[in-house]
Amino acid sequence: MTRKRQSAHDLPDLQLPERGTRPGAVSVRVREDADLIELIKALRGAGAEIIAINTFPATRGEPEVVRVFDFELRNLDSAEAAVLLRDVPGVAKADPRNTLGQIFGKRVIVIGGGAQVAQVNLGAVTEADRHNLRGERISVDTIALVGEKKIADAVRAVADLPRAHILVLAGSLMGGDITKAVTELQQVGIPVVALNMAGSVPTVADLVVSDPVQAGTMAVMAIADTAQFTIERQRGKRY
Amino acid sequence: MTRKRQSAHDLPDLQLPERGTRPGAVSVRVREDADLIELIKALRGAGAEIIAINTFPATRGEPEVVRVFDFELRNLDSAEAAVLLRDVPGVAKADPRNTLGQIFGKRVIVIGGGAQVAQVNLGAVTEADRHNLRGERISVDTIALVGEKKIADAVRAVADLPRAHILVLAGSLMGGDITKAVTELQQVGIPVVALNMAGSVPTVADLVVSDPVQAGTMAVMAIADTAQFTIERQRGKRY
Repeated sequence: MTRKRQSAHDLPDLQLPERGTRPGAVSVRVREDADLIELIKALRGAGAEIIAINTFPATRGEPEVVRVFDFELRNLDSAEAAVLLRDVPGVAKADPRNTLGQIFGKRVIVIGGGAQVAQVNLGAVTEADRHNLRGERISVDTIALVGEKKIADAVRAVADLPRAHILVLAGSLMGGDITKAVTELQQVGIPVVALNMAGSVPTVADLVVSDPVQAGTMAVMAIADTAQFTIERQRGKRY
Repeated sequence: MTRKRQSAHDLPDLQLPERGTRPGAVSVRVREDADLIELIKALRGAGAEIIAINTFPATRGEPEVVRVFDFELRNLDSAEAAVLLRDVPGVAKADPRNTLGQIFGKRVIVIGGGAQVAQVNLGAVTEADRHNLRGERISVDTIALVGEKKIADAVRAVADLPRAHILVLAGSLMGGDITKAVTELQQVGIPVVALNMAGSVPTVADLVVSDPVQAGTMAVMAIADTAQFTIERQRGKRY
């Protein structure tokens, strides 16, 4: 199997701001008769590339407004997109927004047992704070789960999480299907840090760290543009 | 202004599993000639409602595959959606997935200073663990930021974050435009918990808590279906 290994810094991501591209986002509040395809066609007609669409029920209580569509775009400014969409049938309101990548940036994902997830988080949030102060945007996102199947499913789902750039597995015993899920995630270019633990996960992890606070810190350093730490040079090491 | 107040439990959310609807998700790996609108038409033709679309660059190194589209659906199973999309021009591979809502569930969002965010997190992750053990899925997602404008922008962006059900503001001084952003977020139905702090944010927050670990714990209790705690009964209280 050819595994394409790339730097955690350089993982390509359409949902992050990138030099030479114009990111845009627009939140559209629509009536029953609005058609998603017409909205997409209007944006494309102005040269936009669609990067993400999310839809929510309308909860502000405006008359006739039933649904919200949020679009993330490239090559069209938020303000231009909003003006454009106001003319599409069924649109009640269109507001320019920041993209979620502009606000929340790259994501460190932490999965595992509550006590250890919380300690990894302590390290990761504190380290992310220091990088965010220097102009980066790094979020730390977590879920506490128990059981091989639940954790393996969550590891696989990290590949589908927008802006996820690294995973930390915080537990005391992980193996079996979780290990298989880790290698699948690595194949899409997302590195995996594991606590030093029982089970086979540490044998496939990109980096193994005994102290959970340091595991969180190193995970942030691995994806920060403002850090010198590269996971390629650490691959297979244990701390 | 009519502010539609609803329970944090009951905030309607198309991206969470809901009784009586069939959630589905499919990850589609495509060649250069695939057209997003054709993919949407194929899904709709089978009766699916499109809930979310995310696109990623292809990073697995498969020949000719340039892009991944992830779809989240209602009223069409993941497996049926995958079979269907394999016949659309430009599709190299279509795999059934779990929806992100099935895996990561409702999200508690924590924004503020590193030290305090980490402590809120400690409470929230530990409490989420206890609810997830009983069958819920609650994630705790954080970003450490400094400055009125940056924090106000982040608060506003929480309205656009899929599956965000409550916000905790963890700082020592927040007011001005942040307070305005808090009231805007409350208008879409997302409650806001604040630490007891200087500035005007605590005067508009749904709940004010002095201890950060308890603030995180209460935020999780407020959105957990397995907890008795309702934020409506706590509104305006300080602990």
